[in-house]
Amino acid sequence: MNANIKKYNLLYEKERKKINAILHGTVKNRKPSSLYIPAAYIINSEGKRIRPFLVLLSAGAVGGNFSQAYNAAVAVELLHDFTLVHDDIMDNAEKRRGKLTLHKKYNKNTAILVGDSLLSVAYEYLLKDCNGYSKSIISSFTSGLIEVCEGQILDTDYEARKYVSLSEYLLMIKKKTASMVKMCCEIGATLGGGTEKEIKGIANYGLNIGIAFQVQDDLLDIIADENKFGKRIGSDLIEGKKTYLFIKALEKARGEDRKLLSKVVDNKGIGINQVKKYKELYERLGVIADARKTINYYTKKALNSLNVIKKISDKEILVWLADELLKRIR
Amino acid sequence: MNANIKKYNLLYEKERKKINAILHGTVKNRKPSSLYIPAAYIINSEGKRIRPFLVLLSAGAVGGNFSQAYNAAVAVELLHDFTLVHDDIMDNAEKRRGKLTLHKKYNKNTAILVGDSLLSVAYEYLLKDCNGYSKSIISSFTSGLIEVCEGQILDTDYEARKYVSLSEYLLMIKKKTASMVKMCCEIGATLGGGTEKEIKGIANYGLNIGIAFQVQDDLLDIIADENKFGKRIGSDLIEGKKTYLFIKALEKARGEDRKLLSKVVDNKGIGINQVKKYKELYERLGVIADARKTINYYTKKALNSLNVIKKISDKEILVWLADELLKRIR
Repeated sequence: MNANIKKYNLLYEKERKKINAILHGTVKNRKPSSLYIPAAYIINSEGKRIRPFLVLLSAGAVGGNFSQAYNAAVAVELLHDFTLVHDDIMDNAEKRRGKLTLHKKYNKNTAILVGDSLLSVAYEYLLKDCNGYSKSIISSFTSGLIEVCEGQILDTDYEARKYVSLSEYLLMIKKKTASMVKMCCEIGATLGGGTEKEIKGIANYGLNIGIAFQVQDDLLDIIADENKFGKRIGSDLIEGKKTYLFIKALEKARGEDRKLLSKVVDNKGIGINQVKKYKELYERLGVIADARKTINYYTKKALNSLNVIKKISDKEILVWLADELLKRIR
Repeated sequence: MNANIKKYNLLYEKERKKINAILHGTVKNRKPSSLYIPAAYIINSEGKRIRPFLVLLSAGAVGGNFSQAYNAAVAVELLHDFTLVHDDIMDNAEKRRGKLTLHKKYNKNTAILVGDSLLSVAYEYLLKDCNGYSKSIISSFTSGLIEVCEGQILDTDYEARKYVSLSEYLLMIKKKTASMVKMCCEIGATLGGGTEKEIKGIANYGLNIGIAFQVQDDLLDIIADENKFGKRIGSDLIEGKKTYLFIKALEKARGEDRKLLSKVVDNKGIGINQVKKYKELYERLGVIADARKTINYYTKKALNSLNVIKKISDKEILVWLADELLKRIR
């Protein structure tokens, strides 16, 4: 496997450039420019393009060609951009991918409409690739979209609540994050001509990688190296977010510890200078170890799902990608 | 024809009830309720359901059965509701269909998400009906959606501009209003199994009816009977909207008349007590007659497009519907 890592990295960089080029073309020369220049602003902002790359890899994993899935790959990235633009309005976020968010750069009305039209262009691109599979591809995509909307409202609901259970949290991240990763894999494997069993297996890989990735994101917020992570450590606590670690800690804590955690909810966050104290509490309660275990559990589940693919060389890159996405904590 | 009017009215009422029942079921029992109860609020509000009815009639006009198109009919109404919810946020509107707008009843974030999810459920319903025609149906629907977004931004752009030409105005209403009517007809005729020529003809009927309807709406704002119209007469002038009549008047006016019209733009509207003066100016400039002519022109174009349908009994109800929609000014 190690011998292939360089090859996989090069492939990722090559495909990322291709995806960026197609993405760039999606709204270029469209009119009115008052709609499509702001759309280009988010489309051309730097992103990792993991979702479209997963579409391509999933097509490849079932023996298909990447060329069967480029437009679909671009469609899932446009869908992702749509969610970013609308979520940023709802969260009143300032920055996205190192730039001003779209509604701050332009205005809220433009951002609402740009989101809507990114979604419409996403469907347009999806249709270009789905000859013969139209119904199942559009159906996967639409289900993913429905789940994302449901996940986003759950996230908002939970913010306003005092207590959220771990299973409620898992439902939310499944819908908000993992369902879209699943959908990318499902669409790619379908376009690549996979069997029903293969499509299901690869979709399951995506779902579980998505869950693991989100829990990792929660964990990194507290244990990452600030310079590498690019965000302030503890910002979830500062903002009073009900993350995996926080929910798990509240489940386990008793007495004074519990009171301390309840304060995060009651005061809608904590001060920067308190992060260290909470990190120590998390360590004492063992929730950092719990998070690691959970990430490993879902990662293993993801990799086991790939057993449906018999040829090792076909699936090895998906194993590598899981490792890449989750290696930050290992 | 006259003998059939009662029959058509009864049919419309019957189908409207059926459509309302299916619409009601689209989000019933879905979770989370924080998303779908607000969605039901707009879905179950009283609407004329003209768009879904047009889908059914278009299927019938090419010899198909209504039963082939109920889910698609519901999908276009959900798409319509999506545009209403997002447009109302952008316009900061207070009332819709006699009730508080969704973002006033709940809040803006919920309204953004409800809009998004109405659109996703629309695609879900569309897929139920489009066996065998998936690609062309989804493609029509998606094109309609793209046009609506473009039309909405043009409308916003025009608000901020001093001068808008008549052809720019026509482009905007084509995109914002008529393209969706066209799409309803196109989808219905496709699902009904129409030939390419029939689908094109019926789509063209929809497009032109849509244009005529929007110009009529502009005209009614100034000449309607306030009690029957349900809106304050002259509200477009009061709000400083660049309607068909206003743009046409500005094109024709010279000297003092022109200055008077420019004031509407400069002051972003007029006082209620000035409406009478502007109505007299419109009459003097002949733009009320111009609007009538334009409505008749597009209505005739619409009806001529129905020539592709040979059996008179199949298309008569579409002729009746055009008459119903446009009779208010005749």
